[in-house]
Amino acid sequence: MLLCLGSGLGFSGTDSVTHDDLVLMPYPASVEIKEGKFRLNKDFTIAHEGKAHDRLFAQATRMLRRLDRKTGFFFTQEFVTPEAKAGAGLVIKTQRPGEVRFGEDESYELTVGDNQIILSAANDIGAIRGMETLLQLLKADDEGYYFPAVEINDQPRFPWRGIMIDVARHFQPIDVIKRNLDGMAAVKMNVLHLHLVDDQGFRVESKVYPQLHEKASDGKYFTQQEIKEIIRYADELGIRVYPEFDVPGHATSWLVAFPELASAPGPYSIERNSGIFDPTLNPTIEKTYEVLGNLFVEMSNLFPDPYFHIGGDENEGHHWDQNQDIQKFMKKHGIKDNHELQTYFNKRLLKVLDKQNKKMVGWDEILQPDLPKTAIIHSWRGQEGLAKAASQGYKTILSNGYYIDLMKPAYKHYLNDPIPANSTLTDEQKKNVLGGEATMWSELVTPTTIDSRIWPRTAAIAERLWSPAELRDVESMYERMGEISFLLEEHGLTHIRNRDVILRNLTQQADIEALKVLSNVVEPLKGYRRNPGGAVYKTYSPFVLFADAAIADAPDARVFNRLVTDYLNGNSEAEEGIKTWLQLWSANHEKLAPVIARSPVLWSIKDLSANLSAIAKIGLDALEGELQEGDIMSQLNSYHSALAKLEQSREQGGRTDLQVVNSIKQLVKSKAGVLAAYRAENNVTVDGDFSDWNDVTWNYFVPAKHLNWNDTCHFAIKWDKKNLYFAFKVDNSNLQALANSRDKEGLHMDDGIEFLLDTDFDRSKEWKDDDLAYHVNVLNAIIDDRGSLKNGEYNNGWNGNAKTAVKVSGTVNDPSDKDQGYQVEVAISWKEIGKAPKDELVMGIDLCVNDRDDVYQQYRYFDYMNLPVFHMPAGFAKLVLVDKNFKERTSFEQE
Amino acid sequence: MLLCLGSGLGFSGTDSVTHDDLVLMPYPASVEIKEGKFRLNKDFTIAHEGKAHDRLFAQATRMLRRLDRKTGFFFTQEFVTPEAKAGAGLVIKTQRPGEVRFGEDESYELTVGDNQIILSAANDIGAIRGMETLLQLLKADDEGYYFPAVEINDQPRFPWRGIMIDVARHFQPIDVIKRNLDGMAAVKMNVLHLHLVDDQGFRVESKVYPQLHEKASDGKYFTQQEIKEIIRYADELGIRVYPEFDVPGHATSWLVAFPELASAPGPYSIERNSGIFDPTLNPTIEKTYEVLGNLFVEMSNLFPDPYFHIGGDENEGHHWDQNQDIQKFMKKHGIKDNHELQTYFNKRLLKVLDKQNKKMVGWDEILQPDLPKTAIIHSWRGQEGLAKAASQGYKTILSNGYYIDLMKPAYKHYLNDPIPANSTLTDEQKKNVLGGEATMWSELVTPTTIDSRIWPRTAAIAERLWSPAELRDVESMYERMGEISFLLEEHGLTHIRNRDVILRNLTQQADIEALKVLSNVVEPLKGYRRNPGGAVYKTYSPFVLFADAAIADAPDARVFNRLVTDYLNGNSEAEEGIKTWLQLWSANHEKLAPVIARSPVLWSIKDLSANLSAIAKIGLDALEGELQEGDIMSQLNSYHSALAKLEQSREQGGRTDLQVVNSIKQLVKSKAGVLAAYRAENNVTVDGDFSDWNDVTWNYFVPAKHLNWNDTCHFAIKWDKKNLYFAFKVDNSNLQALANSRDKEGLHMDDGIEFLLDTDFDRSKEWKDDDLAYHVNVLNAIIDDRGSLKNGEYNNGWNGNAKTAVKVSGTVNDPSDKDQGYQVEVAISWKEIGKAPKDELVMGIDLCVNDRDDVYQQYRYFDYMNLPVFHMPAGFAKLVLVDKNFKERTSFEQE
Repeated sequence: MLLCLGSGLGFSGTDSVTHDDLVLMPYPASVEIKEGKFRLNKDFTIAHEGKAHDRLFAQATRMLRRLDRKTGFFFTQEFVTPEAKAGAGLVIKTQRPGEVRFGEDESYELTVGDNQIILSAANDIGAIRGMETLLQLLKADDEGYYFPAVEINDQPRFPWRGIMIDVARHFQPIDVIKRNLDGMAAVKMNVLHLHLVDDQGFRVESKVYPQLHEKASDGKYFTQQEIKEIIRYADELGIRVYPEFDVPGHATSWLVAFPELASAPGPYSIERNSGIFDPTLNPTIEKTYEVLGNLFVEMSNLFPDPYFHIGGDENEGHHWDQNQDIQKFMKKHGIKDNHELQTYFNKRLLKVLDKQNKKMVGWDEILQPDLPKTAIIHSWRGQEGLAKAASQGYKTILSNGYYIDLMKPAYKHYLNDPIPANSTLTDEQKKNVLGGEATMWSELVTPTTIDSRIWPRTAAIAERLWSPAELRDVESMYERMGEISFLLEEHGLTHIRNRDVILRNLTQQADIEALKVLSNVVEPLKGYRRNPGGAVYKTYSPFVLFADAAIADAPDARVFNRLVTDYLNGNSEAEEGIKTWLQLWSANHEKLAPVIARSPVLWSIKDLSANLSAIAKIGLDALEGELQEGDIMSQLNSYHSALAKLEQSREQGGRTDLQVVNSIKQLVKSKAGVLAAYRAENNVTVDGDFSDWNDVTWNYFVPAKHLNWNDTCHFAIKWDKKNLYFAFKVDNSNLQALANSRDKEGLHMDDGIEFLLDTDFDRSKEWKDDDLAYHVNVLNAIIDDRGSLKNGEYNNGWNGNAKTAVKVSGTVNDPSDKDQGYQVEVAISWKEIGKAPKDELVMGIDLCVNDRDDVYQQYRYFDYMNLPVFHMPAGFAKLVLVDKNFKERTSFEQE
Repeated sequence: MLLCLGSGLGFSGTDSVTHDDLVLMPYPASVEIKEGKFRLNKDFTIAHEGKAHDRLFAQATRMLRRLDRKTGFFFTQEFVTPEAKAGAGLVIKTQRPGEVRFGEDESYELTVGDNQIILSAANDIGAIRGMETLLQLLKADDEGYYFPAVEINDQPRFPWRGIMIDVARHFQPIDVIKRNLDGMAAVKMNVLHLHLVDDQGFRVESKVYPQLHEKASDGKYFTQQEIKEIIRYADELGIRVYPEFDVPGHATSWLVAFPELASAPGPYSIERNSGIFDPTLNPTIEKTYEVLGNLFVEMSNLFPDPYFHIGGDENEGHHWDQNQDIQKFMKKHGIKDNHELQTYFNKRLLKVLDKQNKKMVGWDEILQPDLPKTAIIHSWRGQEGLAKAASQGYKTILSNGYYIDLMKPAYKHYLNDPIPANSTLTDEQKKNVLGGEATMWSELVTPTTIDSRIWPRTAAIAERLWSPAELRDVESMYERMGEISFLLEEHGLTHIRNRDVILRNLTQQADIEALKVLSNVVEPLKGYRRNPGGAVYKTYSPFVLFADAAIADAPDARVFNRLVTDYLNGNSEAEEGIKTWLQLWSANHEKLAPVIARSPVLWSIKDLSANLSAIAKIGLDALEGELQEGDIMSQLNSYHSALAKLEQSREQGGRTDLQVVNSIKQLVKSKAGVLAAYRAENNVTVDGDFSDWNDVTWNYFVPAKHLNWNDTCHFAIKWDKKNLYFAFKVDNSNLQALANSRDKEGLHMDDGIEFLLDTDFDRSKEWKDDDLAYHVNVLNAIIDDRGSLKNGEYNNGWNGNAKTAVKVSGTVNDPSDKDQGYQVEVAISWKEIGKAPKDELVMGIDLCVNDRDDVYQQYRYFDYMNLPVFHMPAGFAKLVLVDKNFKERTSFEQE
């Protein structure tokens, strides 16, 4: 917590506010800041004018309570009632009662003046959205609390902004649902999708078929009374609730109650693992449709929303393949594969739902040629599928990219747009994209931890779905999300408080500081790594261990990584902050080790804790010059030992991994980077083949993490009496290059490599005559330069004589396939370099990769030294020539 | 958190455990520690033998889950089922199904051996109690988790161990009730008493009279479905649930629905304040009995427990007095006062309840001469009332002393025994004392804070009611309670986590450290001080402000005060800890002030925060000798300025007050105490009258806080050429003295004062010839001594010539009345002292009060310097004679 100084309510002294002071999320469509402040005091009252549903009064009263909690005012008004009060501070004006239905008008206008606040909306639901904005506007100065004068005009970009909560894998009781509904309302979301049934449980009471919840839920299910209460509660907040009954796959729980509906002989018991399982409903027997029909009618009545999700995902049809009767049925009806059989099944269900006036929603897989256009496609597999369905005229909802259970950082979700800037959909087709849903699959969460998986990241998704598409500033998003997080906790969410609960449980003591320091720089293993094969964790495994206290955006790591980026971009003021963090971490293991020793449940993080302290020490050593002491061979040693320790520290502990390794590595590179060029033991043939490169140590570099880009560049460097040699091996799944001849413009944007040498090792900030750079693209075209012209531009007119060769794995300029990458081999003569090669000769160096990629409509690049400008010898690593006796003179191990 | 190192699971290395290592609460009746350890691993299983109610399996499974959460083991056993598993690690043996009823056998035997654990009980409820003990036994060493080998035989002391939760003043929804039931089970409590109705709300659905919950609950009430779920959930834990419908007072909510039942004309609306209100049911009309009758029948069916609480408290009968019809009715029926009228009312209700086979429970006030012996008296007013009822043959339950809403420290509740050691009840009468209930009145709590008011203090009450009476070690209780607190949080209680939530809400930031430092040394205003007249807070006032984050036993204050006590008792090692705390506090305001400045909601604690830092600095100055610098007049100044600042720092802030003032004052006294004897301006007459003492500054001292004793001794000292004069004014509500003549044995235990002088001011540890001491009791008898005999005893043979006078306010030796106290005036000649009086003469001094009090069957005492042994000049304050020019030479203000 040392460095975590939140800016609070944006205390503004007595100056007026700016846009940066407004902690609004989702940010409104239009905000105009005015002069003035509306002062809040205990006599503040709220009145209403016009027509509205009763929920308006409930929510306005609730806002009053939330304001009193925030400000400590003992407001004299107890309830907001339809009787308007003269001189009310806030007047809410609505024209008609709102309806909690898809497409309802949610727009509002909010005008804060010195003496009165007017919130106008077509209906109470718009007004409720506006109240959340007003609450977020609360600020304080020397005189107390106030709302800054503003004029806000706001409406959502997408009409479907939801969360799917999987209550099947781990049941989430009604209080969990209610507090998450509060959270949703706080960020203006409007759909709750309940994934009620899966292999691991059937989670809703059926009065028609009580065996479903009785046999297949371990007693953990919603009563119909509770479902009604959830719907009522959501309705008050202007949120729709609709159910999902996943069929025909993910069906174990159905079959526990109805083994006769199975495609394979039982017996069936509730699934305790995670993953994709074979039990599947038999779509060829009438009993299946009878049971589903009756149940769907019952559930259609229970859930008034006109949308009804039938799942339909991940049915691999193994049991269909194995069932002779099903095979016969398919033959008889001319159903040629399992996809068609599922379509047959879906169409039968569609009839049932049609009769109930329900619109069928299903996951990607239901999109089959015959699917009626009334069905809604819920995309979990990718934006392409979504675009395809939308272009075919289906209404669509996006969840791919919003899988919050995978513990990815918020910015990834934030930048994931249902209609990306480069979308090829027509304006008409774009209207088919209704919005999106954050999907909270619950294999790895319990009521204790689920909030910390949903929040605050879902606020970023909410903004993506509500606010204008142009809003894409990740730093601003993180800053506002950090503060909204407190507001969410105040609403009752447990995402902050329960982290400490878990840490206290693990240590059985109040002093969780050292453990929290570690927890704040790790993240749970991401994607499906944490629970490979769905077999590590079962339903009843403990979910209150170290990984469960960690969150997706390790908070201290984010702050630190930002500082390092600033520092490497030349902001020297960041150094002190970096040191403070490194000192904290470097001292942490000494504090934490005894705590770990006493708690066997923490033994799995002992190395993790030791690693954090070790690499923090390495970072400090780099900053303080310790790694750079001694002769060049010592420096080479120190640097490679540091790299080896940094690599080793990537090992996971307690199902988490450290999030500061790359930043520290960048620091170490920047401060102490020394690369070795090895004396070649054999002749080197420049042919793009690396069979003659086995005698050296390879190294690698990757793009900075925030670039959201996983390619790697492996490289090695050698020398002999004649040449300096480079070998590059680059991962790239989409090879693209346009320049096919020397010095052609734009070549630097093609897929290709680049190296830069400061041959005199003068570390100058300017690009001098001794400095040279080569680009080689995947078409083996070159652009090179040496020194600068008088006007300061790099001298591209210079042409070197380096030999280059490229070997491509894949097809260049064919975006339809997936490529592997390419290799580049280079020989540049000492004559050209202008140096006499000898052991321990030092030059400056940087190495880079360029990447052209149509999807992104721009080129990307990353370099070994992570420099803001490449032609800057001052930031280069040292390159030292080492001879055959290198190994005897060094202690670092080969990778 | 600096100094708060919990001992966790009592990590014991590889040594074997001791009684002190066992964190058991309530501590079992008998624990025998054996050699050996039962090692826990993931293959641990639980089996059952014998007959049991199904709740056994649910609870055994739950224990497995709690063990996995604690240890991180992924146990292979998913559920505990009736099918016994061979080789189970834990075998639970029961003989019959338990019944959740008053008086059920809850005993159990727990034997942990190296290879197996046997838990035997008559029934599953005893087994459930034993499981909680087993969970608390979990320990860890270098090899991992284990249960130490023990042999435990346990059973409760009282059969009625409950919590009353007031859900009327602030409604507490079902999830609050459920998690508190979990907490109750964890400390082996067995009764939940729901106070369902009060002026502020009618909190249960009535199908017979729906207007009750519809009109009088603001929509906040339990549905009957929820009541059934609460009862089911409690039943699984072996806990009874019974309702209270408070009549005929506290009746506003009844009258909102049924104004026709009122004793005074309406209209009635739900009460929003706290306190005692006049609305009362009219006991003279039949409609009252019709409504209550029908409702009680409905509720009797809803709550299966045979006990039914009718409240009956705090009916002042004002509306009865004012109602002419009621007055006529009383006259007609020969009912002479309101008490008799209430008895009439109660007897009518008793008939209704009798028919439903319910036993009537009521608060103290229902105990009237005619009350049938089947009624149960629930004592809230005092132990005397309880004993009286028990001696009359009524069954009784104690809640006086268990009012956890009053925010008193845990030890007060802990030492409050339903049958005190000096009870005059016969063994047979003692059986009428069934136990007790902690009472959680909810005027000032919401679901966010209620847990922190109930826990962990109620664990101390649970131990009082379960464990042997002899267990009264407060330090051991606090130590175990501190650890059990974590276990309670792990069960889902929010008493720890929600403190931080409130602090984050107040600061809107993650860095709540400085605010927490302050929060950890304050306590909410106690008793009824926080909400005087019930008018400061209303139902909908904010209850998430600074006071709501503070708890009854300010945790850091407790640690610090303990250190100071140790230090003043001669443990010099405590000094470093004291300094660390004082340094933390002294630096805290600088950190907290900017946080407060930015948050208007915190402005009310600005002085509180400044005061903490100021008095911490004073404490440091005392420890480091700063206050003792300069000449004696400077020291006198420094000391009195310090005292004045300490007194001023007692001011409340944010409805809390500081809990370290007295300890710091003791430190300051001990290190820098300088009292002034003032030059008398007039002649002093030794007559016990203080009209001639207006010319001096009075001072005072009080007993150490943990003595739980509120008397005060004011005193002043003067001198003239002939004598040194003392004036004492002592509060005492029960004057007692036996010795009526000089030097009579035991006089030192009588109510009286004492002063000791180190005339040579040699500060010796031994009592030397220059040192003299006088006791004067309230009968004006004296015992004095000077110097020591050869055998080391004080020379009581010495007789001084001091003149003494006593003036008593009250009656000595009459415990039946309430006395005010007494005054003592003393003149001792300089000749006797052996010194020549002069300005700035310094001697050593201590002043004491003795107190004999039959109720406690021992004498108590307290002294100005808080010395462990009084005859110890080394610990005395300085006494300096000051002349008429005193005021010109000092800067401290007169009190």
